[in-house]
Order: sequence, then structure tokens, then C-alpha cells
Amino acid sequence: MANGTRERMIAATARLLQHRGYHGTSLSEILAESGAPRGSLYFHFPGGKDEIAVVATRTAINETTRYLHRTLAEAKSPAKAVRTFFEEAAEVMSESGYTFGCPVAPMILDASGGVTELEEMCREAFDEWTGLFRQAFVEAGIPKKRAEALSLLVEAAIEGLLLIARSYRDVSPILTVAKEMEATIKAAMPETARPRKRAPGQSATDHS
Amino acid sequence: MANGTRERMIAATARLLQHRGYHGTSLSEILAESGAPRGSLYFHFPGGKDEIAVVATRTAINETTRYLHRTLAEAKSPAKAVRTFFEEAAEVMSESGYTFGCPVAPMILDASGGVTELEEMCREAFDEWTGLFRQAFVEAGIPKKRAEALSLLVEAAIEGLLLIARSYRDVSPILTVAKEMEATIKAAMPETARPRKRAPGQSATDHS
Repeated sequence: MANGTRERMIAATARLLQHRGYHGTSLSEILAESGAPRGSLYFHFPGGKDEIAVVATRTAINETTRYLHRTLAEAKSPAKAVRTFFEEAAEVMSESGYTFGCPVAPMILDASGGVTELEEMCREAFDEWTGLFRQAFVEAGIPKKRAEALSLLVEAAIEGLLLIARSYRDVSPILTVAKEMEATIKAAMPETARPRKRAPGQSATDHS
Repeated sequence: MANGTRERMIAATARLLQHRGYHGTSLSEILAESGAPRGSLYFHFPGGKDEIAVVATRTAINETTRYLHRTLAEAKSPAKAVRTFFEEAAEVMSESGYTFGCPVAPMILDASGGVTELEEMCREAFDEWTGLFRQAFVEAGIPKKRAEALSLLVEAAIEGLLLIARSYRDVSPILTVAKEMEATIKAAMPETARPRKRAPGQSATDHS
């Protein structure tokens, strides 16, 4: 199925870019990793490596954005959401055998291979992700300026932790900072906005 | 002078690795950037790219370690030291035209080009840097477990901020988080360990 081949090539490229960066990812590796025949690469991506790198990075960014959106929406508080986000990143990192990473970090560190579209995409991704955190923090009652600083700190911390965990081949630094960040955000929230502990026997919907 | 050529090649390699990563740095660029003749590369570094990458990364790591040591020793408190460290990184980042970065991050994201010695060096650098922060935090009276979490957070945050600032070509995210981190560390210090505000006219050495 032509469509299945295209999707497999995109997924393989995203994994390779996260693991080895823009310059470290070759077309032959994309073909080997996706099991696609050489002809299908230029059929689906006439622009070659740059085109597939742009599509794979955009796909990976969108997945992260959707995931982040859902995590913030489902958590009891943004403090808990940040902890969950970090802990689940740790899980994916160890499951991937320490090849997982942020889709934008390697693009930035490889000077985006000089591809302007990749550069813009990375900026937009940071805007979107810090924006989601900031909005959640403001909605939880944290003053705007502090919410701005905390959203940058959360974004910077997870970027750095993915590097540190990969280097050590150990996710415990992510788990340690997950708790630290949860506590910091909780402490920044006004008392009234923090989720109350339920009395035993009291139902989750009982606000009396 | 042969020695000058060697030092220039090391410095050029360190800059290129930080800007473009392991796979994105070629021997021809190292020669062009350092102005060294091709023959001198194999004269000084018979092991070629891997050897010069190892030496350049080690040199850059040692510079960072020495700088961090001095900043922590000279600051009035570790909270202030972290702020200074972040602010000075911001300055170097903008002065470099947004090509500056951590010497170990690109090595990790390029899967160290498969060079085991580079991998080990990155882990040791993280050990050393987080160790310096942790020690300073413990000496300022922060309990060991919290000092551990904060040292990881500081290290992760600066790694992530160097990426974010480069992507935006703007250092203000670093400066914003510098203040946030200073406040967090200060708040973690016991009251007695915080530097006292001096009364007007009182000298810095007057502890009476």
C-alpha cells in the first residue's frame, strides 16, 4: 500500500532525526529503517532529504502538541500535568533504548542543515508548547509574568533532561526533576486554585 | 608556529561542533575555519576527525568546568552564581551570532558519531557540572535530596535554554529563567544562609 510506505518512511525519518540529527541521517538509512524501496522515496518526496525531513519534523511536532494538549486538559492541575508529561517522556525514552528525543532539538543543534523551513518550524513549536503551558498556568491563577517564566523553565528543563537521560542511559534525572517541577508550579498557584484533598468517602463530583 | 596552529584547529573544531554537530562538521570546514594547511591536520591529529573532535570537546568541557568553578566561588550565594552563569551564557550566545552552545549537547544528539570516548566524556561532564552545583547548594544549607534535584534542574534548564535562545535568535528566555532560578534556589536556602542586606554605610567586610 503506497500510503503505508509513505507513513513508514516519515516515521523512520523522525526516529533517525531524533537519534542522529539532520546531518547524521542519510537517505540510505531512511530506506533501510523503513524497508521502503529507493524508488518510493522520490515518488513520495521529490524534494529528497530536505522534504522528508520537513514532513517528518512537522509530524513529530504535531504529535507532541496534541499529546501536550491532552495531558494538560486531563490532569487535575497543571502542576500534575507537567509531572505526568515528564514521567511519560521518561518512559518513552527508556522504551526506545535511549534514542528518543525532542523533534526540534537536533534540528537546532545541526543549524537546521541550513533549511529555513525547519528553522521556522522549530520556533513555532517552542511558541506553541510554551504557550500551552503558560495558558494552563494563568488559568490556574499564576500571575502572567511568573507563568511566562515557569513555562520557559518547564520547556527548557524537558529539553535538557532528554539530553541528560540519553547521555546517562538512565531516566532517573527526568523523574527527579518531574517532582521538583510539580512542587514549584504547585507553590506558584494561589491556595484556592489547588485541588483539594478529598475526605474519605466523598465523591470526586461532590463539591458541597 | 606549530603550536599556534594546533590551538587554532582545536578552537575552530569546538566552535563548529557546537554550531553544526558531529556529523555536520567536516575536516575541510575545520581547515577553512582555522586557516590551517591540510598537512598540519594529520600532523597534529593522526586520528583525523574523531581525534580532533575528542580533543576539542575535552578542551571546551574543561573551560566550562573552570568557569563554573570560578563563578560559584566568587558569587555571594549559589543562587546569585546560577543567575550570573545563565546571564553570561546569554551574553556569549548573542556575541557569537547564535552559534554558541554547550559542548556536550550536539555530541549526545548526534549519537556521539558512535565514538565511545565522546559518550563517556559527556557523562563525566554532566557528573562534574551537576556535582559542582549540588555541592554549592549543600554548602548553602539546602538539604541533600533537594540540592540534587535543583542541580539537575539548573543543568537541564541551561541546556534547554541554549537551544531555545538559538532557535529564537533571542536571549531573553535565558534572562527570564535566570531570575526564576535565582529565586527558586534562594527560597530553598535556610534563612540564616542567605546573604544579609547591608545597612547603608556598612562595609562589605564589617560583620559586626
